[in-house]
Amino acid sequence: MTELTSARSPRVQAARRLAKRAFRIRDRRFLAEGPQAVREALLEPGTVVELFHTREAAARDPRLLDSAVATGVPTTLVSAEVMKALAQTVTPQGVVAVCHLLDRPLAEAVGPGAQLVAVLAHGRDPGNAGTVIRTADAAGADAVVLTSDSVDAYNPKCVRASAGSLFHLPIVIGVPVADAISALRGGGLTVVAADGHGDLDLDEAAGSGLLAGPTAWVFGNEAWGMPAATRALADHVVRVPIHGRAESLNLATAAAVCLYASARVQRANSAGGTFDNGRGESATERRG
Amino acid sequence: MTELTSARSPRVQAARRLAKRAFRIRDRRFLAEGPQAVREALLEPGTVVELFHTREAAARDPRLLDSAVATGVPTTLVSAEVMKALAQTVTPQGVVAVCHLLDRPLAEAVGPGAQLVAVLAHGRDPGNAGTVIRTADAAGADAVVLTSDSVDAYNPKCVRASAGSLFHLPIVIGVPVADAISALRGGGLTVVAADGHGDLDLDEAAGSGLLAGPTAWVFGNEAWGMPAATRALADHVVRVPIHGRAESLNLATAAAVCLYASARVQRANSAGGTFDNGRGESATERRG
Repeated sequence: MTELTSARSPRVQAARRLAKRAFRIRDRRFLAEGPQAVREALLEPGTVVELFHTREAAARDPRLLDSAVATGVPTTLVSAEVMKALAQTVTPQGVVAVCHLLDRPLAEAVGPGAQLVAVLAHGRDPGNAGTVIRTADAAGADAVVLTSDSVDAYNPKCVRASAGSLFHLPIVIGVPVADAISALRGGGLTVVAADGHGDLDLDEAAGSGLLAGPTAWVFGNEAWGMPAATRALADHVVRVPIHGRAESLNLATAAAVCLYASARVQRANSAGGTFDNGRGESATERRG
Repeated sequence: MTELTSARSPRVQAARRLAKRAFRIRDRRFLAEGPQAVREALLEPGTVVELFHTREAAARDPRLLDSAVATGVPTTLVSAEVMKALAQTVTPQGVVAVCHLLDRPLAEAVGPGAQLVAVLAHGRDPGNAGTVIRTADAAGADAVVLTSDSVDAYNPKCVRASAGSLFHLPIVIGVPVADAISALRGGGLTVVAADGHGDLDLDEAAGSGLLAGPTAWVFGNEAWGMPAATRALADHVVRVPIHGRAESLNLATAAAVCLYASARVQRANSAGGTFDNGRGESATERRG
C-alpha cells in the first residue's frame, strides 16, 4: 500500500481544515479521532466519508481497517507526519475519520415517547459538552440538544470527550434555548432546569414524583451557572444538594447525578419491580 | 507598593519549582492558583505560606488581599511577567498562593464515625482526580484517599479541578491500595469498588441496604478501569448501570453518581423523613 507522505495533499488539506468550525459548517463534515470514536462512527452506516490511518494503527487494530473496507469506506495510509497534521491531539492514536455531520432537527430527534432528554443551554467548554453527551447516552437518554448558545458538538475536544457517544444518540444543535424548551414541553416533557439556586432539592424532586414522567433536563454554564431568563423558562428548578463545603459541582458531574436520578425513578416506575426506598430496605410491587 | 519584576528572584524561583513533584515533596509545599482556590486556602489557618498577586488581581478582588493581610500571610506584588512564570495556566488569573501540604495520615483523616470515603485507587488523570475531590466534598464525604498508584493531589491541574475542595476535607495520599482498603474496613466501613464489570447494579445496591452503612467507595483508572486484584479486595463490586449504548462512564462522572447514591441512601436512613421510593410516591417513617 502506498503511503501518503505530503501534508499538503489536497485531500489532507481538506480534512485538516475541518478542525475549524467555519469549514465544518461549509462542508457539513467533521473529524473523529482515535480508535474508539472511529469504531463507533463505522457502526453507523453512511456516517464515515473516509479514513486516514498510519501503518502502526493498522497493525495495532486490523479489525478497525477491515470494518472500514467491509462497509465501503475509502481508507488512506498516511505517514506519521501527515497524521500529526490531521490529528488534534498531542499524541495522535493514528486514525482519523472524516464524517458527515450527525445533527437532526429537534422534531425528528425527540419523537413521541421520548422519556429523557438532556439540553445543554449555555455550555461553552467542549470537554464538558462531550462528557454530557457520553453521560446522557449512558443514562439512556433519547437525545441531547446543544442550544445555539452552547459550544459546537463537532469541536474536536467535544468529539473526543463523548467517547463515541456522539454517534449513539440523536444530537440537535443550534436551536435557541427558548425554542428548544417550548418544543420539548409541547412534546409532553416536563422541563427541569438544574441550578445551584433551585428551590427543590434533587432527592425531594425524585421523591415527589416530579421526575417520574418524560423529562427534559436543562443545564447551564460551567462558570456562571444559568441565567435567570433560562431558569424562568423551566417548569421546575432543581438543585443537586451540596452536603459538604463545595461551592458547586462541575457541570458534567451535576448533569450525571441529575440524569441518573431520572433514569432510576423512571425505570423503577415502569418496571414496577424492586425499588430503592431510600432506607436500605427494598420492596416489590406491581405497577398500579 | 514596590512591584517585583524579576522572575529570577530567589523567592519566585523557589515558588516556581513547586510545579514539579520532586520539589513539592522536598519543600512540603505546593501552589494554589486563581482567586477561588486562594480564597479557600486562606480560610484554613496556617495553610498559606505566602501570596503573589498582580496589581490587576488586587484591584479586581481587594477582599482577597485583605483577608491575606488580616491572617498575617505575606503578600508580594508582582509584574504580569513574573505571574506568567509562576502560573500554570495559559491565562493566569493574577494570584498564586504557596501552601503547606495538606495530606494527613489515614488513621487521622478517617476517624470513628466516618460515613463516606472516596478512594481513588488508580487515577492517573489530574483533572479527574481534582473533580473526584470536588464531588466527594459536595456529596459530604468525610475524606478522600489518593493511593500510591494515583496521581499526585498537588499536581496543579488537580488543584485547579478541585475548585477549592482540596482545602475542605481531609486528603490522604501515598498509601498502597491494599493498606488503604484494609484500614478502612478495619474502621468499620464497607468497601465498595465501582467497576463496569461489577455483579451488582448501583440501583440494586442502593435498594438492598448495602449502601446504608458507612461506606468507602473505591474508583479505578480512567482508561483501563480497575485491576482484578483491586476488585478482589473489595466487599462488593458495583457497576453504574449503562442504559444506553455508551461503553462506560467517565471516571469522575461515575464517582459522582456513586457518591451521591450513598449520600441519598445514608441521609434518608438517618433523617427518617420523606424518602424517594423510586416510584414517584413518598412516605414518611421514623428510623427504627
